[in-house]
Amino acid sequence: MKLYEFEPFPNPRRVRMFLAEKGVEVPTEQVNVLEGEHRTEAYKAKNPSATVPCLELDDGSYISGCVAISRYFEAANPSPSLMGETPAEQAIVSMWQRRVEEGLMDASTTYFHHATPGLGELELYQNKDWGMKNHERTIATMKTLDAELANKKFIAGDKFSIADITAVCGIDFAIFAEIATLDDLPNLKRWHDEVSARDSAKA
Amino acid sequence: MKLYEFEPFPNPRRVRMFLAEKGVEVPTEQVNVLEGEHRTEAYKAKNPSATVPCLELDDGSYISGCVAISRYFEAANPSPSLMGETPAEQAIVSMWQRRVEEGLMDASTTYFHHATPGLGELELYQNKDWGMKNHERTIATMKTLDAELANKKFIAGDKFSIADITAVCGIDFAIFAEIATLDDLPNLKRWHDEVSARDSAKA
Repeated sequence: MKLYEFEPFPNPRRVRMFLAEKGVEVPTEQVNVLEGEHRTEAYKAKNPSATVPCLELDDGSYISGCVAISRYFEAANPSPSLMGETPAEQAIVSMWQRRVEEGLMDASTTYFHHATPGLGELELYQNKDWGMKNHERTIATMKTLDAELANKKFIAGDKFSIADITAVCGIDFAIFAEIATLDDLPNLKRWHDEVSARDSAKA
Repeated sequence: MKLYEFEPFPNPRRVRMFLAEKGVEVPTEQVNVLEGEHRTEAYKAKNPSATVPCLELDDGSYISGCVAISRYFEAANPSPSLMGETPAEQAIVSMWQRRVEEGLMDASTTYFHHATPGLGELELYQNKDWGMKNHERTIATMKTLDAELANKKFIAGDKFSIADITAVCGIDFAIFAEIATLDDLPNLKRWHDEVSARDSAKA
């Protein structure tokens, strides 16, 4: 088993953090996206989507996408559960994971790739207006979460879950991309401080 | 339990099809999106995302998002499995579900909402260039799937799964929106004929 990833980027961090919470160690190989290594024929043979992270299983098959890779480890290493246990918990975690993935992770990276120089010559298509729409969406999602977290410990309820991982990676990228800060969002800041203090947040 | 949905739309169809495959019946209530019923305060109190479908559980909580709702029924009614059984199967189904969701369902509906009149006055923001980029993406995904299906019975492998449901709903919407046809895509057409012949496809 091997995890293809790129340490500086926000999506690979989601999987590293998930693995750290599970206490699972997987050998990694860096794919230097800044040097275009994700677009080589050798890498696209593993993952036609040309994205990191990508997990190589021992039978030689490949899994790409953060949630799909996380799903593998949730099933193979169920404890601690990070994707819910009862049917309702599983559904609520899935719902919140997707909401923060769309509203924070995808929105903030879309802003970065479309409305800033992004990765420079590696950007194949940019649409500034779409980027700015996603700037707006990121901020709106952060405000929504601030209201939600007035009454909840974690994004999906009482328990830490993959939704918190996706959210903290998305928010840290939004801060890096200078979309927003946590000023004036006290509940989100309280949650961010708590999640950032976990050992997994440094993985 | 109640499912809020809107029969003419492609995302609610995904959940109806999933339930039909499971043999589970859930009372439904129509939310007429064409008349803006998804944006009423009463509906947004249930689902702040203002989307259909949305599942009301017996404890009064709400689940929105097709995959999250499907996850509830996969856990509550495991047989037949539609989201994989072994860790590798679960991951592969999750990966393909997300690929076809992004590349077909989200791409074709984004084209429709951004580069056509879409839902008319209900469209709050349109970006024609982004719509056309998603037109291109839908066609590229269909070509990729045609190549994949030369060697596979279903999208995620030997077994019918949620990935086939998402894909057929996305492709039927792409055909409705006149983005593409199945001409010159013989493997995709073979698969589409088989999936469309299932009782669940008429749900």
